[in-house]
Amino acid sequence: MKLATFSTGGAPRLGAVVGDTVVPLDGLAADMMDLIKRWDDLKPRAEQMARGEGLLLAEVRLHAPIARPGKILAIGLNYADHIAESGVETPANQVWFCKHTTAVNGPFDPIEVPTAFCDYEVELVAVIGAGGRHIGKDDAPAAVFGWCVGNDMTERMWQHRTPQWMLGKSFDTHAPFGPWIVTADEVADPHALELTCDVNGERRQASNTRHLVFNVWEQIEHLSFAMTLEPGDLIFTGTPGGVGAAMNPRQFLKAGDVVRCEIEGLGAIEATCQA
Amino acid sequence: MKLATFSTGGAPRLGAVVGDTVVPLDGLAADMMDLIKRWDDLKPRAEQMARGEGLLLAEVRLHAPIARPGKILAIGLNYADHIAESGVETPANQVWFCKHTTAVNGPFDPIEVPTAFCDYEVELVAVIGAGGRHIGKDDAPAAVFGWCVGNDMTERMWQHRTPQWMLGKSFDTHAPFGPWIVTADEVADPHALELTCDVNGERRQASNTRHLVFNVWEQIEHLSFAMTLEPGDLIFTGTPGGVGAAMNPRQFLKAGDVVRCEIEGLGAIEATCQA
Repeated sequence: MKLATFSTGGAPRLGAVVGDTVVPLDGLAADMMDLIKRWDDLKPRAEQMARGEGLLLAEVRLHAPIARPGKILAIGLNYADHIAESGVETPANQVWFCKHTTAVNGPFDPIEVPTAFCDYEVELVAVIGAGGRHIGKDDAPAAVFGWCVGNDMTERMWQHRTPQWMLGKSFDTHAPFGPWIVTADEVADPHALELTCDVNGERRQASNTRHLVFNVWEQIEHLSFAMTLEPGDLIFTGTPGGVGAAMNPRQFLKAGDVVRCEIEGLGAIEATCQA
Repeated sequence: MKLATFSTGGAPRLGAVVGDTVVPLDGLAADMMDLIKRWDDLKPRAEQMARGEGLLLAEVRLHAPIARPGKILAIGLNYADHIAESGVETPANQVWFCKHTTAVNGPFDPIEVPTAFCDYEVELVAVIGAGGRHIGKDDAPAAVFGWCVGNDMTERMWQHRTPQWMLGKSFDTHAPFGPWIVTADEVADPHALELTCDVNGERRQASNTRHLVFNVWEQIEHLSFAMTLEPGDLIFTGTPGGVGAAMNPRQFLKAGDVVRCEIEGLGAIEATCQA
C-alpha cells in the first residue's frame, strides 16, 4: 500500500493512495506512527478501507507522512560518483550524521534557503517498522516498514564550518520526505531503483540505488549495533553525484527555485525555495 | 522548583523535590514535556501542590526527567583543558553533534558498556522552555526552562571511526541526565557552577562552568540560527578535562564501575556500568 498523511483544510488524516486519489483511513489509527506500530493488526482493515471512495490527490494537501519521527539518521559519502565529486577517499566505514526532527517538511511544502549555500540531495529513505537492536543484515529487510523519497537538504557553509556536519544538515524545513510511504511488500528490490533530482526542470542528479556503497541492510546492521531502531525512525540512505556544491561553477539554491526529487515506484516530492 | 519524574512501582509520575522527599504532582500535567509547555499557567498550582506530603526520595525510582526529548544537542571541545588534553586546536566555531533520543537513560539506571572504549563526560544540561528560532544571546536566558546534570557517555572507537562523532555518542543508555530539573529561577548564574565526575570514588573531572569556551547563551544563539528550539529539547553544554581517553594510560569504563556526576546546586546522577 501507499500510506499518506493528508488534510483538506482541517487536521491531518491518514489515507491510502490509490491511483490519483487518496482514500481516507479515518479512525484506523491515531496517526502514521501509531499505524506503523500496529500495522500487523491493522493491515487487513486498512486494505478493506482502501477499497472505499477516494479524494483526488490534486485536491488535498500532503503532509510529511510522519510528523515527528523519533530519529532521522543519514549516511554521507555513499555513492561512488558523489564521493569522487566531493574529492574525498571512499570511507572504510559508514559515515553517519543526524538531521534533527525539527527539519521535517512536507513533500510539497516550501524549503527555506536562508543563506546562499543551500543544496539538494535526493535520497532513498527507509522507514523503520519493527526495528530493534543488533539486527543482522540478513534480518534487516524485516525491520523496514516502507520507503519514501527524501531530500537531504544541506547548508554547505554550516556543514563544513566545523568537522561535524550536523548543524548544516538540520536547518528547519531541510528534511522533506514523502510523498507517501510505500510499504515494503510493494518494493521488490530497494537496491534497483532509479532516482533523480531536477532543479527548475534541469536534471542535476540521476542514478540508481544499486550504486549504494553500503546497502540499506548493511546500514541497518551497523546502526543497530549502537542504538535501538524504533518504529517510524527514518534512514536517509545517501545521495548520488550531481549536488550543486560540486558543479563548476557551484550552483546553490535560491528563492524561487523548484526542486523535484523522484524515485522509481515511490513517487516524487517537489518544493519551491523561499528566502 | 526541582521537578522530577519518578515512580513507585507503577507508571511514572511528576513530582516536586523538597528536601529529601518528592511531593507528587499527580494530575497537574500529562508528563514533564506537557508541564514545560504549560509552565506559565501551571506554576502557581505546582507551587501550591509542592507544600503537600512527600515520599522519601530514597524510596522512589527517579526516571529521566523527560522520557523522550525532541532533540538532544551537544557541543564538543568547549572547555580549554578538555581541548588541550584532546590535542586539538581551540575551535573557531562551535562544534555541534547530536545524541539520539534512544540514548536517554534515568539518572541512576545502569549504563551499557558494550565495548572496551566507553567513556564519561560530565556536563551541564540546559532544558529548553519557550525556545524558538533566531534567539539572540541576550534573549537566550528566557528560552531556558531549567538545568540538569548530564553524562555525555561516549564510545571512543565509534566516535573516531569516521570524522562524524554521532554514532559513538548515541549508544543506548548513553545520555543519562537528571536527577531532576532545577527551574531556571533557582540557578542564579549557570556559568558559575562547580561540576565533577568520579569513577569508583576517584575524582576524574573537576571544573566550573565559568570555563566554558562558548557559554550557554552563545550556544542558544548559534543553534537557533539553524533550527527551532522546542520545549524539552536538551543542550549538553560541553565537558571539562579529565576524560578517560586522555588519561595516561587510558582508562575506559568497565562493567561494575560506578560513575557519579555532580553539579553544584543541581544534584548528582550515578550509574553502574554493565556489559
